[in-house]
Amino acid sequence: MKVGGVTGSLAVVGLGPGPACWLAPEASAVLEAASDIVGYQPYVDRVPERAGQRRHASDNRVEIDRAKHALTMAAEGRHVAIVSGGDPGIFAMAAAVLEAIEAGDPEWRALDITVVPGISAMQAAAARLGAPLGHDFCAISLSDNLKPWSIVERRLRAAADGDFVIALYNPASKARPERIHDTFALLREVKSATTPVAFARAVGRDDERIALTTLAEADPAAADMSTLVMIGSSETRFIDRPGQTPWLLTPRSYGVGR
Amino acid sequence: MKVGGVTGSLAVVGLGPGPACWLAPEASAVLEAASDIVGYQPYVDRVPERAGQRRHASDNRVEIDRAKHALTMAAEGRHVAIVSGGDPGIFAMAAAVLEAIEAGDPEWRALDITVVPGISAMQAAAARLGAPLGHDFCAISLSDNLKPWSIVERRLRAAADGDFVIALYNPASKARPERIHDTFALLREVKSATTPVAFARAVGRDDERIALTTLAEADPAAADMSTLVMIGSSETRFIDRPGQTPWLLTPRSYGVGR
Repeated sequence: MKVGGVTGSLAVVGLGPGPACWLAPEASAVLEAASDIVGYQPYVDRVPERAGQRRHASDNRVEIDRAKHALTMAAEGRHVAIVSGGDPGIFAMAAAVLEAIEAGDPEWRALDITVVPGISAMQAAAARLGAPLGHDFCAISLSDNLKPWSIVERRLRAAADGDFVIALYNPASKARPERIHDTFALLREVKSATTPVAFARAVGRDDERIALTTLAEADPAAADMSTLVMIGSSETRFIDRPGQTPWLLTPRSYGVGR
Repeated sequence: MKVGGVTGSLAVVGLGPGPACWLAPEASAVLEAASDIVGYQPYVDRVPERAGQRRHASDNRVEIDRAKHALTMAAEGRHVAIVSGGDPGIFAMAAAVLEAIEAGDPEWRALDITVVPGISAMQAAAARLGAPLGHDFCAISLSDNLKPWSIVERRLRAAADGDFVIALYNPASKARPERIHDTFALLREVKSATTPVAFARAVGRDDERIALTTLAEADPAAADMSTLVMIGSSETRFIDRPGQTPWLLTPRSYGVGR
């Protein structure tokens, strides 16, 4: 799409959870072809360097500024890839880019923009755990940087009312360690104490760590910002395996045999 | 893991939504190495043929039989890949395999079993639509083969109470065309008539089709079994683009400016 007489593009690219084996071929091809890579430093560092390609790494708290910078370069005719961990559509850069477009230069709406999907943290966690997402589920971010905590509480209660499996993103940060504590406290009021809970940390990376427990026993300190916390429905259960962590299963049926 | 003196394995592999550009390298490698490919015929057909590799294609309604067959071959020392569209953990084969293990031969628990994640239909749909999953969301299957319709209704109401974005899988089949009709009727009671709705059909395949509308205008006949239906939260909105389908954005913030 021509903007101001030049032809640029912006791809919002999901890098997946970390390892190259989970990076989609479309993402690899777009990253290889891009003139400019934009993103939070640790994500930019994951992209193989290529001669002639420019790299623009930034801090984590400036998604909108990063999106505007990428859009400005695309409008100048550059072929820009803006990178996210996981899937850019799930608690990542796709929304920030569209927010910047909505509020920004009207010419940006005519740019050639694509979103390149990736495997998200809950999927990597689910793969290691067995089949916790085998039935209906919710994904909730516990980050309250941009939303009031009251909407998180409302959604946690609704997720319990609906007996959904719950995947919790951004469960804790140094600034707000109490969020996951408050979440467990709320869920203990409305869900069974024996509900399975999994902490899946840095899945696919060298420091991967999986821990299973129950809602009654779940320790908020087990979650950091690299952890995906999975909370079962009333149907979710453990399947023991000799010498290994049990599998976690949410069966395809509901209410069978009860 | 040795079972009965032999060493077999079972990988539950996600093929993604369809195109090779969305098939993760781990999935490609596992499919290439497998001695046996098991799955629903159209998924098996997607796997490139390799000399010496055996293919076992089956009908769609026999997930448990297919899982047992795969486990039996793995226990005999074969290296089996059982394939799903999308992500095997999301409304696909991972749960069926673990259900078969739970109810089956105790030796199966000692098998070398891995789940290989893939990009799911809601992510491909979200990529085409812009950023509809930019905030908390639910995924609900409207298939009632294995669950009572009452739990679907309960979850739809809970998803509306929580003001989640809702991704609907399996919205319609020839046998049950009324499910998506009933879903829209229920949601119209509890959500705004102007709520954005998207029909994302066969994303990534030749017959891909995207349609945007509102909850008031949504036509149940627009959904078939290849369609992912996305229903916005109160924050989800359209962003117009010149000469193209508008973007769909659920912003990262909640309740800002209201």
